[in-house]
Amino acid sequence: MHYLDNAATTPVVPEVIQVVSETLAAHFANPSSLYRLGFKAEREIDKSRKEIAKALGCTWAEVIFTASGTESNNIALLGAAAARKGWGSHLVTTGYEHPSVIKPLERLALEEGFSLAIVAPGADGTVDIDEIVKAVRGDTALVAAMQVNNETGAIIDVAALAEKVKAKNPRTAVHVDGVQGFTRLPLRLAGTKIDSYAVSGHKLHAPKGVGALYLRKGYTLHPPMLGGGQENALRPGTENTAYIVGFAKAVALAGKKHIAAQQTTQQLQQQLLQGLAALPGVVVNSPAGGYAGIVNFSLPGVRSETMLHFLEERSVYVSSGSACNKGGRSHTLSAMNLPDKRIDCALRVSFSGENTPADVEALLAGLQAGLGSLARPK
Amino acid sequence: MHYLDNAATTPVVPEVIQVVSETLAAHFANPSSLYRLGFKAEREIDKSRKEIAKALGCTWAEVIFTASGTESNNIALLGAAAARKGWGSHLVTTGYEHPSVIKPLERLALEEGFSLAIVAPGADGTVDIDEIVKAVRGDTALVAAMQVNNETGAIIDVAALAEKVKAKNPRTAVHVDGVQGFTRLPLRLAGTKIDSYAVSGHKLHAPKGVGALYLRKGYTLHPPMLGGGQENALRPGTENTAYIVGFAKAVALAGKKHIAAQQTTQQLQQQLLQGLAALPGVVVNSPAGGYAGIVNFSLPGVRSETMLHFLEERSVYVSSGSACNKGGRSHTLSAMNLPDKRIDCALRVSFSGENTPADVEALLAGLQAGLGSLARPK
Repeated sequence: MHYLDNAATTPVVPEVIQVVSETLAAHFANPSSLYRLGFKAEREIDKSRKEIAKALGCTWAEVIFTASGTESNNIALLGAAAARKGWGSHLVTTGYEHPSVIKPLERLALEEGFSLAIVAPGADGTVDIDEIVKAVRGDTALVAAMQVNNETGAIIDVAALAEKVKAKNPRTAVHVDGVQGFTRLPLRLAGTKIDSYAVSGHKLHAPKGVGALYLRKGYTLHPPMLGGGQENALRPGTENTAYIVGFAKAVALAGKKHIAAQQTTQQLQQQLLQGLAALPGVVVNSPAGGYAGIVNFSLPGVRSETMLHFLEERSVYVSSGSACNKGGRSHTLSAMNLPDKRIDCALRVSFSGENTPADVEALLAGLQAGLGSLARPK
Repeated sequence: MHYLDNAATTPVVPEVIQVVSETLAAHFANPSSLYRLGFKAEREIDKSRKEIAKALGCTWAEVIFTASGTESNNIALLGAAAARKGWGSHLVTTGYEHPSVIKPLERLALEEGFSLAIVAPGADGTVDIDEIVKAVRGDTALVAAMQVNNETGAIIDVAALAEKVKAKNPRTAVHVDGVQGFTRLPLRLAGTKIDSYAVSGHKLHAPKGVGALYLRKGYTLHPPMLGGGQENALRPGTENTAYIVGFAKAVALAGKKHIAAQQTTQQLQQQLLQGLAALPGVVVNSPAGGYAGIVNFSLPGVRSETMLHFLEERSVYVSSGSACNKGGRSHTLSAMNLPDKRIDCALRVSFSGENTPADVEALLAGLQAGLGSLARPK
């Protein structure tokens, strides 16, 4: 199997499956229970919180656990807007955000009386930080931006963005969707002015169903869901001890393997780009200087889904865009204002440190064969 | 170990741990991905949906998966109120609901302009359905009630409640917190007028971190969180395939073991009640005719926590109330308006079908020893 869709989700590594199983058996108690079995489960969660805080570059009290990157984004955005409603009714974001960012913001605009400024990426796929900052006003409650775009790998320097936003309006909250960037880019949150940062386990070889949210010390939020006082009363529900421990394990492994994974990813990116350059008419949609693990390109004359299924027959797995957009047209490429033909023929390839040159060879061979047999004369 | 705190959470059974592990390895793909690996994961989820629908007595399209009973309650309550805001600004609930029900309702009252009627339980621990129905008005958007109270086992006949509420106001939505009742009471949702019903995996020997929500066909909700279109766009976020499959496995096992578990639970309840009757001054707080798996009682002269830790030393685990209320005073016993002394000395014992008479013997021996060494003269 040549799995090249790691931006959609990643295989869960055996070490993580093992700690999840062990924790399910050993630490089943409710972490809120007052006896030792409960305390022990709570301690496992806090050890995990410290591990993830270490990777985020923050203190452990600044991390809460959630069920997904989507939930982290929702808590951060809906929570920040509700807490700032009194003075701030303006929101700023980019044109290429994940649905779990753009949809809550659109709802705030449609139903809660906020106005929303959307800064589109250029045709090269990058968003200009200064355009975002230019949109910030005195009544801007919140700026939200994605660190690494999930469809093209485009990077926003979110530390610089937060610095500039706060210089213009110190009251404006800055939220970052770090789902694709976490453990891959060298951000240390403590040194930044970012207020909140959302991450997900399943992009890092942990299971689907666990995420975390960094909330800067002293930052206030009005959480969208209520219940027991878990996670500082910001995210109610009995804690998922086993997945939290598995998430921390995956993050620890990512830390250990970081240098190697970065090298692997860059080599595979180069191998792929060189291979693509040899195919007639291929256009790369990912910007230069983006995250090496995501490469988006268009193959003239073959629709994305057709090629996707052709590759699948050869056990090569790539995607036609974001999995969360299931078969819809690429949100990011549309925001870049690319021609329809290029959007309809786009493929996204995404690496993890577990991929090998053989995976890229299989992909390139598949693309070549596919172009030969599938492409229609223009 | 004598684990008698199954209303707080249950041990995850080995069969469930095994399917979770297998699914993490075999079905890691994103269920929204367009290739077969994704479809296979989606099929596992839908098989699980059918299994859980079978236990709920509804169709599989009426079930969505969430991360917890808490999330299911929040989606149902906040979602129902938001969808009915135009005509309904009145809410009705009981005085002994779980925090994930009462807190969202209180917020709707405090911040969203709703008014909230709370029907308290009597001193016997039961809530009178007719009192709830009496509180329903023409502008009542929503009635929410717990099927089995988590602290005392008190039962509300939620099918009869829904029938009567709809007879008085057909537009009023009826939500049921079924977290403690699911698979234990013989409710079949299809035959009722209940609109939504929240359940949780970890009360049924599945992991913490998965729940489900029944939503009657045609019922409309305005979901509190937004993102990808997963779960009919009512609960966004990449699906937790492994826990969903584990949840279905646990529900299937609960179905197979239902008769045996019911008998076990009733026998253990009788054994406990007889043993308690022999201890001087013990008062039972659970109502007659409640769910046999939850027995709440007060031991005169020994504070709950003191006895809890004494029992813990003997490897007997019980709780002083709801785990979600971590050390706070019992919400349910307070609502029953019991004397402070009785509340402060209350213990909750909760069985699962996995418990044995030896567990109850160990508990009774511990209580007797504790009363001898810990009780202060009045």
